[in-house]
Amino acid sequence: MVKVGIINVTGYVGMELARLLYRHPQVELASITGRSAVGQRLGEVLPHLADIDLVIEPELGEVTLVFSALPHKTSAEAVAAALERGIKVVDISADFRLGDTKDYEKWYDFAHPAPQLLGEAVYGLVELNRHQIAASRLVANPGCYPTGALLALAPVVKEGLIDPDIIIDAKSGVSGAGRTLTLGTHFPEANENVSAYALEGHRHLPEITQELSRLNPALPLAVTFVPHLVPMSRGILTTCYARIKEGREGMGEFEKGVRELYRGFYRGEPFIRVVDAPPQTKQTLGTNVCLIYPTIDPRTGRLIVISCIDNLVKGGAGQAVQSMNLMLGFPEGMALEGTAVYP
Amino acid sequence: MVKVGIINVTGYVGMELARLLYRHPQVELASITGRSAVGQRLGEVLPHLADIDLVIEPELGEVTLVFSALPHKTSAEAVAAALERGIKVVDISADFRLGDTKDYEKWYDFAHPAPQLLGEAVYGLVELNRHQIAASRLVANPGCYPTGALLALAPVVKEGLIDPDIIIDAKSGVSGAGRTLTLGTHFPEANENVSAYALEGHRHLPEITQELSRLNPALPLAVTFVPHLVPMSRGILTTCYARIKEGREGMGEFEKGVRELYRGFYRGEPFIRVVDAPPQTKQTLGTNVCLIYPTIDPRTGRLIVISCIDNLVKGGAGQAVQSMNLMLGFPEGMALEGTAVYP
Amino acid sequence: MVKVGIINVTGYVGMELARLLYRHPQVELASITGRSAVGQRLGEVLPHLADIDLVIEPELGEVTLVFSALPHKTSAEAVAAALERGIKVVDISADFRLGDTKDYEKWYDFAHPAPQLLGEAVYGLVELNRHQIAASRLVANPGCYPTGALLALAPVVKEGLIDPDIIIDAKSGVSGAGRTLTLGTHFPEANENVSAYALEGHRHLPEITQELSRLNPALPLAVTFVPHLVPMSRGILTTCYARIKEGREGMGEFEKGVRELYRGFYRGEPFIRVVDAPPQTKQTLGTNVCLIYPTIDPRTGRLIVISCIDNLVKGGAGQAVQSMNLMLGFPEGMALEGTAVYP
Amino acid sequence: MVKVGIINVTGYVGMELARLLYRHPQVELASITGRSAVGQRLGEVLPHLADIDLVIEPELGEVTLVFSALPHKTSAEAVAAALERGIKVVDISADFRLGDTKDYEKWYDFAHPAPQLLGEAVYGLVELNRHQIAASRLVANPGCYPTGALLALAPVVKEGLIDPDIIIDAKSGVSGAGRTLTLGTHFPEANENVSAYALEGHRHLPEITQELSRLNPALPLAVTFVPHLVPMSRGILTTCYARIKEGREGMGEFEKGVRELYRGFYRGEPFIRVVDAPPQTKQTLGTNVCLIYPTIDPRTGRLIVISCIDNLVKGGAGQAVQSMNLMLGFPEGMALEGTAVYP
Repeated sequence: MVKVGIINVTGYVGMELARLLYRHPQVELASITGRSAVGQRLGEVLPHLADIDLVIEPELGEVTLVFSALPHKTSAEAVAAALERGIKVVDISADFRLGDTKDYEKWYDFAHPAPQLLGEAVYGLVELNRHQIAASRLVANPGCYPTGALLALAPVVKEGLIDPDIIIDAKSGVSGAGRTLTLGTHFPEANENVSAYALEGHRHLPEITQELSRLNPALPLAVTFVPHLVPMSRGILTTCYARIKEGREGMGEFEKGVRELYRGFYRGEPFIRVVDAPPQTKQTLGTNVCLIYPTIDPRTGRLIVISCIDNLVKGGAGQAVQSMNLMLGFPEGMALEGTAVYP
Repeated sequence: MVKVGIINVTGYVGMELARLLYRHPQVELASITGRSAVGQRLGEVLPHLADIDLVIEPELGEVTLVFSALPHKTSAEAVAAALERGIKVVDISADFRLGDTKDYEKWYDFAHPAPQLLGEAVYGLVELNRHQIAASRLVANPGCYPTGALLALAPVVKEGLIDPDIIIDAKSGVSGAGRTLTLGTHFPEANENVSAYALEGHRHLPEITQELSRLNPALPLAVTFVPHLVPMSRGILTTCYARIKEGREGMGEFEKGVRELYRGFYRGEPFIRVVDAPPQTKQTLGTNVCLIYPTIDPRTGRLIVISCIDNLVKGGAGQAVQSMNLMLGFPEGMALEGTAVYP
Repeated sequence: MVKVGIINVTGYVGMELARLLYRHPQVELASITGRSAVGQRLGEVLPHLADIDLVIEPELGEVTLVFSALPHKTSAEAVAAALERGIKVVDISADFRLGDTKDYEKWYDFAHPAPQLLGEAVYGLVELNRHQIAASRLVANPGCYPTGALLALAPVVKEGLIDPDIIIDAKSGVSGAGRTLTLGTHFPEANENVSAYALEGHRHLPEITQELSRLNPALPLAVTFVPHLVPMSRGILTTCYARIKEGREGMGEFEKGVRELYRGFYRGEPFIRVVDAPPQTKQTLGTNVCLIYPTIDPRTGRLIVISCIDNLVKGGAGQAVQSMNLMLGFPEGMALEGTAVYP
Repeated sequence: MVKVGIINVTGYVGMELARLLYRHPQVELASITGRSAVGQRLGEVLPHLADIDLVIEPELGEVTLVFSALPHKTSAEAVAAALERGIKVVDISADFRLGDTKDYEKWYDFAHPAPQLLGEAVYGLVELNRHQIAASRLVANPGCYPTGALLALAPVVKEGLIDPDIIIDAKSGVSGAGRTLTLGTHFPEANENVSAYALEGHRHLPEITQELSRLNPALPLAVTFVPHLVPMSRGILTTCYARIKEGREGMGEFEKGVRELYRGFYRGEPFIRVVDAPPQTKQTLGTNVCLIYPTIDPRTGRLIVISCIDNLVKGGAGQAVQSMNLMLGFPEGMALEGTAVYP
């Protein structure tokens, strides 16, 4: 059993990591820390995890790999310290997702405390960076919105099949906003309600454009990303719109072929399912699966791609464990098996 | 008191009409019919309407104006019969919204039983057709999705400020799907879930394009419309995307000016509120208000317009009563006053 | 137009008062104060109330009657000050509901700052205290749970028809917990969840027992009250259980007669509806109605009474306005008309 | 691998069985049947189960054990046929839960087609009947409400510590009503709503009284059971009320001791957790756990016991698999491990 730890277990991704790691046959969750509740048993703070017999510690114990689920900036410091101790890291925060320190100043308002690590951090979208992740000691786990958007768009961006004008309209459950209390996530306000937010620019946007650009540096991307809050606890449905590049729409077989293109791109991927009918977020609840439905608007010829994920699993703790499995040499899907909790 | 009636009161728009008409100081709800429950008191079938002392009748009684809330095709027949009796009609169904009989064959699969009336029917979006509605004896009440989309797009389409490529991404509460039982609207399936549907073409699309084209016949529209089902009972949030027409984006003041443009277009409108922050569907619950938030994506210069309505009020019974008020010579907002039931 | 005010408009009952008073034809909402947001327009803070053209003030202006929606203790001080200025008061807080100062120390942990007013305050359940309310200058608006429980139990307690062992099992929407942020009312935690709370004793219990005892001082009450939180914004369903007093169950006609007893007790009450089928909270949404369904368990002969209210209307702002109407000499139901917003 | 089957996989318990069996390391789900969708792949009908590579068959194949998830009456016939083929059965329907054929006529309106089997069927509440289940070829899986109520009450009923007057007030998520479409479970009607139902007598009542009587035949039970529908997909919270028997309340240590009594009664039970704070249904989502919180109302001395389960797992498919494990000689908790999907 390989020992792993979680820094800041009390947030939503932290507790989801604990749920998944508890199922893992080759890994032992050996050390957990929290920003509050130090000294308490995990089950006292999070009764649904009462089966996990651990005390929340002030400092990380001896582990081979750690997940840092701290907020940005604080996380970078903890990550650097863990790496110095020789511990491999999957960082849940945004602190190692962007390659340019200026982006942290612009989007997150802080001077990065460990810029020397940005170069070696690998963006943890396994379907795009499998080999680099397996070889890395520092993985930056993607944000929930970027996961849904990138998986939906990667095949056509990489192949250069669409115009650079891309619209990403995402609908997220409220757990995506985290466990910190806000008026907008107070039950009577969020319930029976839908709203758009961050229209001036959401922090996940630079992450999306950076990764899309890596897939196809020649494409002069113009991405509009509008996130929406929807009254459910979990799940993100992302609807992407783009025009087929001139000269490609005439391929004739494209309209039928787009699904084949996606099936080819994701062939063999254990957690990607290209589906033949519009998917629902509920079909992914509790699983690491991403459902992708690419189609062509029959009137305008426009490409529409819809993806569904559980924001806390494939969009959070699940793909972090997927990366961990690669980094530790385990089968990629270990502890991530199973079908959705439906309905 | 002017006597009015409701044909098929037991659907969601039918019962919402009853709620609003019961508040109306100048109108008496005098006759209600249903496809089922004939002979029962309204309060037996719909306990929340127990204060309304009426029996569901097999045939419409003597009224000056009637709302037909029947399904399509059946409604056209009932409307024609009522007009023959000299009764003014607000038709809730789609049967008189489209001008071309071929559209009914294509989108609704039936041969229109009263094509001679299509020419005189007025599309009941008061903000665009106020005078024609006031002078009409037959108003076609808009669909819920078209209401949100058209109000969001009318100013820029009419002014020719955008490119013809328009994306409409709508998020609707489940009552929009009506009261007919389906697996997709069964609570355990619709709850904690988001899905897109009708990607091959929703019946509200021809209505949207027809009305946008009327506003600006020169614009070669290419509209993509994707409706989504969201786990709430009421409300539609519509997010529209379009590119500012070349030559107009350089106006400089446009970015700040788009909101002024909208304020100018809707000046004096009692039920349109152009707002300075992203609106929420909950802020319209139970009211006839449409909240509109136009903005410019600062990175791409793309126009984004968000609108929020209560699908059963402004998107249904409310604007039907607004039209009725005009047709009967009452102040437009009578029985439609009041603020949202929040939270 | 009589001028009225709201102290602390930004809580859920405060904003619901604004909604109802805005509809009132004889009353002008003339002054509103808040604990925060002083100096801002009401519509900036609460966009759904944008039609109400008022600024949140630091101090109450000139009014004839005021609603105090402050938290307990603070409210008592504001109420005393208003009364000194000759302003009539409906106090939304618990500060004048209990007759004994010791109860405030025991249940609310404070020494009452205005004990001299406890004697004259009238408990604002109009159906039980109509005449005293009309004659009073200080009305203590009941808590939401006591409203549902007392209306369900008053007829049989007053008539001495049940044993003193009473169980009150209440299910409340989350707005009942107020607008203050807590982990338990954070959307992802409260959603898809039911829980019981305050099993050691809820603050509404002494209010329930006090008022039941007033109805029948001879009954040695033993009330168990367990409130539950249910994932909806509004509504309380209260299920009450009691045994029919020995000697009365044999009345024979009682099993059929219990509904008649209730109908008789509430004859002429505009907001009480004794119904023949189990009611639903949704049937009261946005209204001042209380639905009551008394029945007899056919196997045990036990009395079961179910009541449904909208916790923010009949259980809050609505009955406060009902009391105000009486205190100002208006028809009791003014501004409270209308049927539920359903579905 | 032992082969097992599911008759009627398309209902909520059927599909949950598939989810759990798919995780089972010693069992192979080898045959599934449906009342509709015969010939289709499971993933076409239930996309969230696409990983399970099976076709819905008209007839049950060769298996060692089968779960029948048919409606009552139909199930009895299928069960009898399977037993004749030498197949062990866990029956999900009510058809073998009651010992007296007259109860089927009275509560379910049918003459039992296989009365000869009623004597040998074992009621599948593992915590009460572990050994009989292990030795049986026919287990009657308990109803969801009885599971929550019986586990909450068994310790005090068996020990004879309470009076026979028992009130069971249960709050259930909507999946408990099954997958058949009804107006009451249509999303817009069930959402933002709470209601009580079956006050004239719910079919789960005879099951509850029968099993409580078996635990303590001397107790002349008078059980009132009121089920409520709550707007969530999964979960049942059951609140039970009873008076401590005279002579026992004076035990002094009882008030503190009741929790110890429960802990003792359930010592070693892998799926029962007696907790020290009021539990929440959400803490059990997706798991086979039953949380039990017994407490004493400090004012009346009345016993209150609250239990929480996932109605489709411990209240359905989960305990069916728990029984299967015993019947097949596997560790009782196999495939049932894991913590709740929270939030």
